[in-house]
Amino acid sequence: MPGGIDPHTHMEMPFMGQESIDDFFSGQGAALAGGTTMHIDFALPVDGDLAAGYQAWEKKAEKSCMDYGFHMAVTKWNDDVAKDMEWLVKEKGINSFKFFMAYKGALMVTDEELIQGFKKCKELGALPQVHAENGDGVVEGQTRMIELGITGPEGHPLSRPPVLEGEATARAIRLAKFVNTPLYVVHVMSIDALDEVSRARHSGQRVIGEPVASGLALDDSKLWDPDFKIAAQYVMSPPIRAAGHSQALQAALSSGVLQLVATDHCPFNSTQKALGKYDFRKIPNGVNGVEERMHIVWDTMVNSGKISVMDYVRVTSTACAKIFNIYPRKGAILPGSDADIIILNPNATTTISSKTHHSRIDTNIYEGWSMKGNIETTISQGNVVWEKGNLNVQRGKGRYIAMKPFGYLFDGLDKVDAAYLTSLKAPVHRAS
Amino acid sequence: MPGGIDPHTHMEMPFMGQESIDDFFSGQGAALAGGTTMHIDFALPVDGDLAAGYQAWEKKAEKSCMDYGFHMAVTKWNDDVAKDMEWLVKEKGINSFKFFMAYKGALMVTDEELIQGFKKCKELGALPQVHAENGDGVVEGQTRMIELGITGPEGHPLSRPPVLEGEATARAIRLAKFVNTPLYVVHVMSIDALDEVSRARHSGQRVIGEPVASGLALDDSKLWDPDFKIAAQYVMSPPIRAAGHSQALQAALSSGVLQLVATDHCPFNSTQKALGKYDFRKIPNGVNGVEERMHIVWDTMVNSGKISVMDYVRVTSTACAKIFNIYPRKGAILPGSDADIIILNPNATTTISSKTHHSRIDTNIYEGWSMKGNIETTISQGNVVWEKGNLNVQRGKGRYIAMKPFGYLFDGLDKVDAAYLTSLKAPVHRAS
Amino acid sequence: MPGGIDPHTHMEMPFMGQESIDDFFSGQGAALAGGTTMHIDFALPVDGDLAAGYQAWEKKAEKSCMDYGFHMAVTKWNDDVAKDMEWLVKEKGINSFKFFMAYKGALMVTDEELIQGFKKCKELGALPQVHAENGDGVVEGQTRMIELGITGPEGHPLSRPPVLEGEATARAIRLAKFVNTPLYVVHVMSIDALDEVSRARHSGQRVIGEPVASGLALDDSKLWDPDFKIAAQYVMSPPIRAAGHSQALQAALSSGVLQLVATDHCPFNSTQKALGKYDFRKIPNGVNGVEERMHIVWDTMVNSGKISVMDYVRVTSTACAKIFNIYPRKGAILPGSDADIIILNPNATTTISSKTHHSRIDTNIYEGWSMKGNIETTISQGNVVWEKGNLNVQRGKGRYIAMKPFGYLFDGLDKVDAAYLTSLKAPVHRAS
Amino acid sequence: MPGGIDPHTHMEMPFMGQESIDDFFSGQGAALAGGTTMHIDFALPVDGDLAAGYQAWEKKAEKSCMDYGFHMAVTKWNDDVAKDMEWLVKEKGINSFKFFMAYKGALMVTDEELIQGFKKCKELGALPQVHAENGDGVVEGQTRMIELGITGPEGHPLSRPPVLEGEATARAIRLAKFVNTPLYVVHVMSIDALDEVSRARHSGQRVIGEPVASGLALDDSKLWDPDFKIAAQYVMSPPIRAAGHSQALQAALSSGVLQLVATDHCPFNSTQKALGKYDFRKIPNGVNGVEERMHIVWDTMVNSGKISVMDYVRVTSTACAKIFNIYPRKGAILPGSDADIIILNPNATTTISSKTHHSRIDTNIYEGWSMKGNIETTISQGNVVWEKGNLNVQRGKGRYIAMKPFGYLFDGLDKVDAAYLTSLKAPVHRAS
Repeated sequence: MPGGIDPHTHMEMPFMGQESIDDFFSGQGAALAGGTTMHIDFALPVDGDLAAGYQAWEKKAEKSCMDYGFHMAVTKWNDDVAKDMEWLVKEKGINSFKFFMAYKGALMVTDEELIQGFKKCKELGALPQVHAENGDGVVEGQTRMIELGITGPEGHPLSRPPVLEGEATARAIRLAKFVNTPLYVVHVMSIDALDEVSRARHSGQRVIGEPVASGLALDDSKLWDPDFKIAAQYVMSPPIRAAGHSQALQAALSSGVLQLVATDHCPFNSTQKALGKYDFRKIPNGVNGVEERMHIVWDTMVNSGKISVMDYVRVTSTACAKIFNIYPRKGAILPGSDADIIILNPNATTTISSKTHHSRIDTNIYEGWSMKGNIETTISQGNVVWEKGNLNVQRGKGRYIAMKPFGYLFDGLDKVDAAYLTSLKAPVHRAS
Repeated sequence: MPGGIDPHTHMEMPFMGQESIDDFFSGQGAALAGGTTMHIDFALPVDGDLAAGYQAWEKKAEKSCMDYGFHMAVTKWNDDVAKDMEWLVKEKGINSFKFFMAYKGALMVTDEELIQGFKKCKELGALPQVHAENGDGVVEGQTRMIELGITGPEGHPLSRPPVLEGEATARAIRLAKFVNTPLYVVHVMSIDALDEVSRARHSGQRVIGEPVASGLALDDSKLWDPDFKIAAQYVMSPPIRAAGHSQALQAALSSGVLQLVATDHCPFNSTQKALGKYDFRKIPNGVNGVEERMHIVWDTMVNSGKISVMDYVRVTSTACAKIFNIYPRKGAILPGSDADIIILNPNATTTISSKTHHSRIDTNIYEGWSMKGNIETTISQGNVVWEKGNLNVQRGKGRYIAMKPFGYLFDGLDKVDAAYLTSLKAPVHRAS
Repeated sequence: MPGGIDPHTHMEMPFMGQESIDDFFSGQGAALAGGTTMHIDFALPVDGDLAAGYQAWEKKAEKSCMDYGFHMAVTKWNDDVAKDMEWLVKEKGINSFKFFMAYKGALMVTDEELIQGFKKCKELGALPQVHAENGDGVVEGQTRMIELGITGPEGHPLSRPPVLEGEATARAIRLAKFVNTPLYVVHVMSIDALDEVSRARHSGQRVIGEPVASGLALDDSKLWDPDFKIAAQYVMSPPIRAAGHSQALQAALSSGVLQLVATDHCPFNSTQKALGKYDFRKIPNGVNGVEERMHIVWDTMVNSGKISVMDYVRVTSTACAKIFNIYPRKGAILPGSDADIIILNPNATTTISSKTHHSRIDTNIYEGWSMKGNIETTISQGNVVWEKGNLNVQRGKGRYIAMKPFGYLFDGLDKVDAAYLTSLKAPVHRAS
Repeated sequence: MPGGIDPHTHMEMPFMGQESIDDFFSGQGAALAGGTTMHIDFALPVDGDLAAGYQAWEKKAEKSCMDYGFHMAVTKWNDDVAKDMEWLVKEKGINSFKFFMAYKGALMVTDEELIQGFKKCKELGALPQVHAENGDGVVEGQTRMIELGITGPEGHPLSRPPVLEGEATARAIRLAKFVNTPLYVVHVMSIDALDEVSRARHSGQRVIGEPVASGLALDDSKLWDPDFKIAAQYVMSPPIRAAGHSQALQAALSSGVLQLVATDHCPFNSTQKALGKYDFRKIPNGVNGVEERMHIVWDTMVNSGKISVMDYVRVTSTACAKIFNIYPRKGAILPGSDADIIILNPNATTTISSKTHHSRIDTNIYEGWSMKGNIETTISQGNVVWEKGNLNVQRGKGRYIAMKPFGYLFDGLDKVDAAYLTSLKAPVHRAS
């Protein structure tokens, strides 16, 4: 089957005073060992400067051993940002921009900025993405927990409950409708957010909801582990939710309400996580996943009978390639497609462990997970890079995959806009 | 039956450079002629100063001929505001505070302010109220209309579509849930907002949705009238919606999803409205209703068979008295209740017209509305003030009705909070 | 506060070859000891004969020590049934009829019979009630369990899952809408059924959902108890559901989506239940509750902070009196009301046990339940019948309370019908 | 693009005393002229005998000029029916069975039969389909209309309102969930039914909703046309609905809540329709569409901007081929696919008229519909059969396409069942 595509990773990302521990080489090696042959990483602006951010990520990615693309984050709004967006879309192969509704004082944007950003995205044919949590609420929730004396990792999910994710998801979807642009909601973690995505799709709105492997497969119980080291590795945002949420996400994925699976791979090792030992707010947010995603989805969704093997290909690869407009070069095995191919043996067994994984992180949130099904071979760009447990990759061999704007989610949008304008009854002639 | 109570009026309100044309005397006369024997007016801060605002409204109200109470608006956040809120609740008989999510640059508050305000309200046992429209979206919508050359009154509803009301309603409800406070959503005008109120109530959240007479009975067609004078009088915010929304509001009112009916009476006459002749953004927002509400609800809901006469008493009077904690002094005919009583003859006929109404406004959004049912007699404080078409009121006779905090919507909230705190598993002991 | 009214009991009911163990005297004594001063019992037809059924119940009730009324079940359809319904409504003070959508081969009616019954009810101003489970599905579910070798009490809930209750509830509500009649859904036990009631009310339909104490307070875990005697006592239909359903029912009750609480009191003792020792299908269905309801609702809803004391009066007494059109004689403490009064001491403690209860049943599904709050005094018809733990009742003192048709749920229905007829565009004149 | 596949037609169908006017030859010619290169027709049992029904349809289809397959209807239940189902699936290439929940006294099945049929379908890997209207309700609605003196075609939609379609859809979906089988709902015509499909899919249930061209594109206004001939041609069941329903169906189709488009092509000409001139109940139910579907979907969905061209291929061809397990032989242009190909010129213009269409029917429900986009060429089995307005077909050239059971909707179902059985906690050991 075609190699996996992970639409959501953060390699070498500077965040909360640390840098995620996988660089483009180590993270991609892990990905290939897990059957993923392309990822799309989130480039961050440097002091709000998108061009500088792009260049920084271009530099980081030189060591790549696997094909990759970029999304770009937008963290403030002015004319330079707008111009850089245009440059990135027209010259640099970026067709998606992410807006943070959380991380107040750092990455968070206002509704006004969100609306302007959505408008610009629409004009450029680029897909706007949102991290949907109410940032003001999160700050309040964190303060509440600290005041209650809850400083451990369990304070993390308690401080940012599902209602805050549901709120921001509802808001982003409605503002996208107001602007009439497609929208991509990254890491849908809760029933609250899922319900909003589902309602919007029911009404015909063009909204993509992206669950991630951790949200699909885990619950929040480990965050109460008395061993800080264990608990802290599960800290990501939005948080992994209580049991029940993952079941709902799986159901929605099975019937196409949600459409693809990412990871938000952003690993920090134990010493990095330890910075938040006495204050969960200082634990760098992020979990591993780029290496495990393909297996976790197989076990959770196919072994359980929730989706077919055809669906598996769709949610791990094809849908992503279509959404980001690189199909059929990626996401398919067709004449003209890149030779990114994996062989999954449904009868072999896989056990996940930090002792054997290829990421640099010293823990693994799926530690000990054992399952039927194993990706035995990965072929990237026509070369066997993973076989019989051997990884054979080459620094610098990864290619940047430029992604064209106006993917299929934009088809016909101009006609819908035209119909809207027509529906505005002509200004009435009024006597002076 | 007990006299009506209108929980939402704006007498002598300075707004958009004008002042609403009814003062406490004229507006209350109109109210009494229409069977309403008490209203709760929105006092606005003076330059953000709540105490000054309260005093200004106290002054305005000296001319009252009917009982009244106040809500107070909160338009920014600082320690003085918090102190004034406490003073108003503990000393001045105010038990509700309104937050505007629209009117950017003027009355609008941020999510952070909203959360702080909700927390303070909860602490004081005062009911937070929201004007729910996304203010950033409204500005964008207005700009869009102006750029399209749509400057007439029809630009008003087109610039602030239901999706923006739905967004803000969803946001306020979720933030109220996050804070665990009751919430009162003023002027629910659209299916979008109604659906949010309904979903929250279904889940057990303490949310009150307030429809207004105009939203319940009218649609937006008149805003396209080629005669500016006619169209402009229907401009209010959130806007009167397209046909279909009012039907849904009536259905929800009939089964208790919505619970009472207000007016948002805020009349501006033709010359005032004319300020926006060439730019709908300058049309003072507001419609009449305090005199018509009781008849409109009778016709729309009782004559149509949608509610019983008992329900009519509840939605026009009793529910309001209970929510604002003045029952059974108001909202009932019981020993100890004030003698505020009306006699409605279901067989008589009423026709509404600006020629015969008692408000100072020179137009009437219900012009020509004819119906079975007439309120023939109004008794206020034991005196017959309206009978056989004669209004007999006395300036200064109206009394300020102090409203105590911790109404029934707060019952048991402390126990829910305590249960929440208990549910936070005790901070885990972690080895250093 | 006014004495409780239990709208749903089965005294001396012949069912599944047994007779429920409480008669009108013992069951009413239990009720009075628990603060309930009136109940409405379900009279069953004798071989489909409603008149005979009524007379049988009249006879059973002669020993009453407390006021009571009757609903009547309709289990088949023909002209005699229709005539008897009319006689019961016009002559005998019955204003509600129950239709079983389950118990195939015994009580179950077809959709055709349901529609005809609804029409007759509407004509008479009597409230149709449904036991909402898909009877064909139940038979299939039972067969499935037996085939799987599951013969114990746990087979009962497994054989009739929530989806079958949701189905029948959806069906009854829609057929009621089709006929345009109010509807009362007895024992709403699941989220599936609740969601249907809530959706209907949101759309303005006149639907009452009745939760029962057991469904509100318990979950199904005891049905897996290895001790058959314990497990069997929890067998009722629809079944007590898995954890989560009761929470949803409580939330809906708190905000008025559900409106009153019953019990479905239908006790069978251990020896009776033992008939189904080797086949759960033979366990007589029914649980106790008439004595415990007032305390269980107090603990579950008021002690938890979910409703106020005023709400408590409403859901245990007033709402029921209004729905069945006996307010304010019952359900209120007003001039003219019957002197049915209770005194609840919120600081005293109550512990429920079969050792101390007054029902004849030898078990208690709430065994050991301890709580703050105790009904110390019950006054029935002006006499103190329960005080300081002493029950002082008199056989034959209970009165039959005739209930008039056309309660408030019918108000305006004729106008809605008239509007519907008008909306049917006049038959078009077509050329021959 | 690949030729269209119409999953829902009725050629030469005996119904209501008439036979639909297109036979396999004329209907298929019309289909080919409209860009459809395969259809799946509904074979009906002969006196309940499935084998006889199959043979009758096999005979009718001998004159085919285009590829075709069969669904089979099940109208009663006994061992012979079950055996015939097995024979048809295993020997005759049928993988779907349709159950009618309406047409009481003729085709309608009971819930018990539905459950048994669903179970058998699941065992065989065949897809159950339902015509979802409450048949008892329909009879009641028809009687109501006749009693009101409404005998014209407008009585048809008035007698079977959306609530009856919503009811049956809700019922079928829940019974399918109870049996754990996939379900295919034919002709989803209303918001009521759509909402049920959408809710089920949101929860992960395997439900396919099939809109038809007429429901997607038309509203019910023509049924009030004073010219009986015009009005009667729009009579089909479930009825074409009021404006608003089609908009909702289009929205749901655009985002994948609904997944393919059929026609329910079942044409009766004016003289046949005239049988119901004085009683709408006697108007043969059915409309044309097999020739128009591809153009109507193009205009309604692509020209309006609601879906992309890729989506168009999916909803008119690929999704159908996948659901009925004939992909990629049909529904694709791939090596090994049949050479069923069409060329659609988006700039050419099409106008629909009974004067130019190829069906035998003398009217056309889309009469005068004009649009951009024209299917200029149709290639069937590698032969150009339609080009430049010329139809060149050959009697007997059409092939029967056998369809294998256990299509993708069944993938993993065994695992879900296994998990369910495991979840039934082991029968508890109880002491005797």
